[in-house]
Amino acid sequence: MSAYDELIEKMKEIDLISQIGGLLSWDQEVIMPPKAATLRAEQLAYLSSIKHEKMTSQKIGLLLDELEKDANLNEIQLGNVRLIRNSYDKATKLPNEFVIEMAKHRSMSMITWTEARAKDDFSIFRDDLEKMINLVRREADYLGYDNVRYDALLDNYESGLTVAKLDPLFENLRDKVAPLVKFVVEKGEIPDMSWVNENTWNKSGQEVLSQRVSEAIGFDFEAGRRDSSTHPFCGGPNPDDVRWTTRYSESEPFGSLYGSMHETGHGMYEQGRPRDLDFQPAGKANGLGIHESQSRLWENQIGRSLEFCEWVLPLWKENFPENMKNVSAEDLWKSVNIVQPSLIRTESDEATYNLHIMIRYEIEKKLISGEIEVDDLPEIWCDMYEKFLGIKVPNNSLGVLQDVHWSMGAFGYFPTYTLGNLYSAQLLSAAKKDLGDINKQIKQGNFTPLLEWMRKKIHSRGSIIEPAELIKEATGNFPSSDEFVEYLENKISDLYQFDTNLTRDV
Amino acid sequence: MSAYDELIEKMKEIDLISQIGGLLSWDQEVIMPPKAATLRAEQLAYLSSIKHEKMTSQKIGLLLDELEKDANLNEIQLGNVRLIRNSYDKATKLPNEFVIEMAKHRSMSMITWTEARAKDDFSIFRDDLEKMINLVRREADYLGYDNVRYDALLDNYESGLTVAKLDPLFENLRDKVAPLVKFVVEKGEIPDMSWVNENTWNKSGQEVLSQRVSEAIGFDFEAGRRDSSTHPFCGGPNPDDVRWTTRYSESEPFGSLYGSMHETGHGMYEQGRPRDLDFQPAGKANGLGIHESQSRLWENQIGRSLEFCEWVLPLWKENFPENMKNVSAEDLWKSVNIVQPSLIRTESDEATYNLHIMIRYEIEKKLISGEIEVDDLPEIWCDMYEKFLGIKVPNNSLGVLQDVHWSMGAFGYFPTYTLGNLYSAQLLSAAKKDLGDINKQIKQGNFTPLLEWMRKKIHSRGSIIEPAELIKEATGNFPSSDEFVEYLENKISDLYQFDTNLTRDV
Repeated sequence: MSAYDELIEKMKEIDLISQIGGLLSWDQEVIMPPKAATLRAEQLAYLSSIKHEKMTSQKIGLLLDELEKDANLNEIQLGNVRLIRNSYDKATKLPNEFVIEMAKHRSMSMITWTEARAKDDFSIFRDDLEKMINLVRREADYLGYDNVRYDALLDNYESGLTVAKLDPLFENLRDKVAPLVKFVVEKGEIPDMSWVNENTWNKSGQEVLSQRVSEAIGFDFEAGRRDSSTHPFCGGPNPDDVRWTTRYSESEPFGSLYGSMHETGHGMYEQGRPRDLDFQPAGKANGLGIHESQSRLWENQIGRSLEFCEWVLPLWKENFPENMKNVSAEDLWKSVNIVQPSLIRTESDEATYNLHIMIRYEIEKKLISGEIEVDDLPEIWCDMYEKFLGIKVPNNSLGVLQDVHWSMGAFGYFPTYTLGNLYSAQLLSAAKKDLGDINKQIKQGNFTPLLEWMRKKIHSRGSIIEPAELIKEATGNFPSSDEFVEYLENKISDLYQFDTNLTRDV
Repeated sequence: MSAYDELIEKMKEIDLISQIGGLLSWDQEVIMPPKAATLRAEQLAYLSSIKHEKMTSQKIGLLLDELEKDANLNEIQLGNVRLIRNSYDKATKLPNEFVIEMAKHRSMSMITWTEARAKDDFSIFRDDLEKMINLVRREADYLGYDNVRYDALLDNYESGLTVAKLDPLFENLRDKVAPLVKFVVEKGEIPDMSWVNENTWNKSGQEVLSQRVSEAIGFDFEAGRRDSSTHPFCGGPNPDDVRWTTRYSESEPFGSLYGSMHETGHGMYEQGRPRDLDFQPAGKANGLGIHESQSRLWENQIGRSLEFCEWVLPLWKENFPENMKNVSAEDLWKSVNIVQPSLIRTESDEATYNLHIMIRYEIEKKLISGEIEVDDLPEIWCDMYEKFLGIKVPNNSLGVLQDVHWSMGAFGYFPTYTLGNLYSAQLLSAAKKDLGDINKQIKQGNFTPLLEWMRKKIHSRGSIIEPAELIKEATGNFPSSDEFVEYLENKISDLYQFDTNLTRDV
């Protein structure tokens, strides 16, 4: 057997373990009975330990050394070798005691964070957060970096991402999006939401709507499931078994539908992975930014477009005939596109969302470098929300304590949300050039051309090349925030008669 | 670490793999999307292979050799050593090529069996069945036996079971139960079933009934789930996560309820395992016969008693007020206790059930010894159904092709169903001596004393001693069919005014 084949065979075993872990985690989040938690944790820890053992085997290191000298590898082989090297280095660079300490502290600090948020008392979380920041700094130092320490963490979630690449993207967003938001706020036009707020929205109707829309845009339910869970997500073991969830509220129907479209976007990406690369790293989805681009595309760019609202309106009327009696496609469209600065990231709109992320990004950069420390956090948070979103943060629960990420040590994760938004705009803009009148297709409920385009340009390309290279290959340009800004300007101009020349460099 | 502790630590890893496999199998049967089948099979095969690798490690053999010389082991330690020796021998005695050949042939012959049954054409299955019989004979020879070859297979499903032990049990059943069935058939009294057959039974009402009854008899839904599946079963990874299923038919409501009580019986046994022996073989349920005793107890001895029908009637009326308007507890009791010889084992009643099993047992004995061969099967089957149940078998689909077991190579499995029936009667008879007026408790819906008795005498004893020893410990007697015959005589006497002196040795 060639060194390459031997390496790939080892990956199959590791991937099967990951698949099994994927099912166990899905089950844990969605349907596991409560008393099963302790033994489920043992099962998952066991899988992690054998996976780590296999991933750090010396033989993998030797095979990589050999293959990295091989000048005859093709694109896919190069991709696999690069990705396996990355995983191997990450797995071997972190000392075992450190991994255990981190895992233990993560469980602990997620508990104190939950309590601190519930009681609106930062001091409960303070010490564990401080320890977590120190652990994460150490993690970055173990992993290594060329320029700034935060780069090592960014690379965990989006391969090749650095502060040098992110800064200009966020700068452009800040300069262009903040004035847009200011314009809308000052204009003060809020659409009539009484048809939403004064009605009850039964769960069964929302379920039918979620299912029908997910099917229509292209999710294959023979190779996946829809369920409900407190924290909606997309998971499952492999492309033949992709499982997404949403949640239902009887007081408003948008969360379940747009959550479903978001997770369907993630799910279709998984279902579209290149099946000849099953079990291989190069056959996997390409990091969190690209993944988020697929969910945001269907949730926002498509789902919140006027054309989609026109197409979907009959489905709404079929399932909620009374509630929807006098509602037009335009009413629906306006209701799902309200721009309004708010405190909570996960409830924010397309225009303000990236400002929430930018604030976290700026804070994380300074925190990881050591420029600020844990006790500075509540004040900096409030200052930045006032400066960039124009709102006062009334307490820490609605402020610095709102997100789970830091308690898990997931520093460097937030920026991928914004990358997803930027990529989705770039990809849609490129797709439009290839596909002709895409708005007309959407209005007719013909989502196939767009999905096929994504299948070809993104899904089937797996992780063969780095995310930024893939964006370049698919769109002609490296990651940029221009298309997203343009998309937002056009939308706000349609919704609120904004003069786009105010922010465009003309 | 002592040799014993080292051995137990190795078992923990093996048990965790089994737990994970248990979840994957449950998921596969109940909720997995269809396209996921191929990769799920890979996941399960991978788990089997690492489990087999761990179970056959030479180190286990060395530790067992050492511990078998140790005169200071306590009861639990002796149990573990005996059980691990058994598993180790079984795993190491079968050559790897044989295990692979068997697994492959099993998949193949389950497919041809399915086709043969659907088309009522024995010839489609004939060659694969012949090959399976030969494989199973080889399996028995690899495993070894003292007297007859079939003993090696019986021991696979009930530790220590032999033909010498089973023959007298079945003989007694044949001599005593066949006349009972004959009496009922000749009497020709069939209760009025119009209230069942002329109504529709909605699924939601049946679901509530299943859930409420399962809760009432003692299943802990914080440590388990109820779902529906085509083939009802009880599975799941461990005592904190026990998952049972049932199936619903709108044309009759008994299948779902009694299926639920049956699986709840299995489930409560799992939930009652000794938790200080988690991950250890001695902490597991004690083979298929005892397991079946727990399901049959709640399904039949309790669930089909007049007192249970009296208690449960209000629940029926609450969920099916129209259908149950004029139905009394006695009507219900008679309807769930119809004795009628029929062709299909799984649909048969308490009285005839064991005759179905006896026929299979007699055939398997002869088949494994070589006294008969595959081509004799259809005729022998028909002859025995005519002789013992008095009915003509119209075709092979309703005859020799009805059960999946032989296509899976599960020879020696059927007798455990009858053992379950016998054990349940023996256990209930012993419990009644300890618990006073148990009928009154059941009529009041107080199932706790009986469950607690089973917890103490059976569940908490795991597999520490052999099944037959456990029955002796719990009831004072080794396995016997006397209590079951007596139970059946009393029931038929109550239902059909049968004179019990006709069959009793007085």
